Amino acid sequence: METVSENRCFGGVQGVYRHKSEATGTDMTFGLFLPEEAEDAPVPVLWYLSGLTCTHENAMTKAGAQAWAAEAGIALVFPDTSPRGEDVADDDAYDLGKGAGFYVNATELPWAPHFKMWDYVAEELPALVTSNFAINEDRQSITGHSMGGHGALTLAMSLQGRYRSVSAFSPICNPTASDWGRKQFASYLGEDEAKWAAHDALLLMAEKGLDIPLLVDTGTNDQFGDLLMTEKLAEAAVKKRAEAAIRLQKGYDHSYFFVSTFMEEHVAFHAKALWA
Amino acid sequence: METVSENRCFGGVQGVYRHKSEATGTDMTFGLFLPEEAEDAPVPVLWYLSGLTCTHENAMTKAGAQAWAAEAGIALVFPDTSPRGEDVADDDAYDLGKGAGFYVNATELPWAPHFKMWDYVAEELPALVTSNFAINEDRQSITGHSMGGHGALTLAMSLQGRYRSVSAFSPICNPTASDWGRKQFASYLGEDEAKWAAHDALLLMAEKGLDIPLLVDTGTNDQFGDLLMTEKLAEAAVKKRAEAAIRLQKGYDHSYFFVSTFMEEHVAFHAKALWA
Repeated sequence: METVSENRCFGGVQGVYRHKSEATGTDMTFGLFLPEEAEDAPVPVLWYLSGLTCTHENAMTKAGAQAWAAEAGIALVFPDTSPRGEDVADDDAYDLGKGAGFYVNATELPWAPHFKMWDYVAEELPALVTSNFAINEDRQSITGHSMGGHGALTLAMSLQGRYRSVSAFSPICNPTASDWGRKQFASYLGEDEAKWAAHDALLLMAEKGLDIPLLVDTGTNDQFGDLLMTEKLAEAAVKKRAEAAIRLQKGYDHSYFFVSTFMEEHVAFHAKALWA
Repeated sequence: METVSENRCFGGVQGVYRHKSEATGTDMTFGLFLPEEAEDAPVPVLWYLSGLTCTHENAMTKAGAQAWAAEAGIALVFPDTSPRGEDVADDDAYDLGKGAGFYVNATELPWAPHFKMWDYVAEELPALVTSNFAINEDRQSITGHSMGGHGALTLAMSLQGRYRSVSAFSPICNPTASDWGRKQFASYLGEDEAKWAAHDALLLMAEKGLDIPLLVDTGTNDQFGDLLMTEKLAEAAVKKRAEAAIRLQKGYDHSYFFVSTFMEEHVAFHAKALWA
């Protein structure tokens, strides 16, 4: 593993690291914030999964999460959103291929060789960061934005027992019914829609419920609101009596100005569960 | 004036606006954060001047200042660092021409026609924002980073009475003696070094002192530390008995990870003066 950069940040270290990934068969880059407390003992960790077009860098520089993570004494991991490199398949559209991995393991060509983002984020990267850094693997929570909110929700619902809490900013809640989802799942997973269900937060909620606290924030002025289908997740969460807060925030849109505004509350929400 | 974008942010609005500038003879773009309080009455304003290579956007998205400005009920202005456009002279170096206006009025060719950043930031933009937005022109303070720290210091020392407080993150303190300064002043102002002195914070401090509170933070690991000459400003400020805090922050470098870490304290420092 190679250190790309390390910067002092809120008393801790904001690092960027690159490693050869077995899951994707490419070099992968991720950001990791370690609070000062990690100098003494392993700390809890909050995963942040990013949205379409993002790399490891967007949230690391724009979400303002380090201020609150430092205060709470927890680490932050910022994975990339897809494999990268000249050998990696891509598409001209912003929402397919590079920057748009959708946190699934692709089974279809040309995507299957490298687009294994589920395995990367669910298995390989957690093993890497918990074995190489002062991170307590028993205290993990997860959040994300948009496509990354979809990733956070589906990982938390599928890997029950892994995370202590889950939150999302403007997540894609029902991708099997959305233009942010149907095209990508058809491309990555094939036309058989039965295989898509494992990657749809609404369907997972309706089937399994959720036994950890859930917090979702979405702006009332989200320009992609119709693609997110927050109302369906709200309905399913209430039906399942999940410990959930699904909040609509007046006047906010889909941007990082929205994400950064509510980051303090999301980190505090996770810190409560992580330190319980 | 054209609205480029407006995003809800920490209860207020982060806007980006474009206008024809008389000072530079070009279109200029700036960011403006207005806290919720501006809906009811004019609010104090903190100017943030950016460093080399930056546009209006860098600090607006990476410095995390809106969180604290919203808490303090003050506006933030993020000007660009130079004129832009195809007609505007430029240089291959990152530290001359576009993105590197150095907050002076160029008198030399090819820079003189458009590089009037002093007039733009000291006169034109303040008139524009105070007449078009709910900003109290009697309550202004100023800060900046690196080249923008130089700008903030020289504006505050030259326009005594304008600002209530001044701060800087890793400012260029003595540009007439630095490779970040000599090349640019020779290009923009000509070879007569007597004309440079009005744009050197150290020389201004030694000559005039400063009658408003000053706060400077610079990292002990700043990779450009030798170019900044913080030690000379510290010496001059103490000699002049200026109300100043010149702080060296252990382990921090020149990046926005450093700036964002200490932004809360800088905004609080200014808020105290702005609301006094």
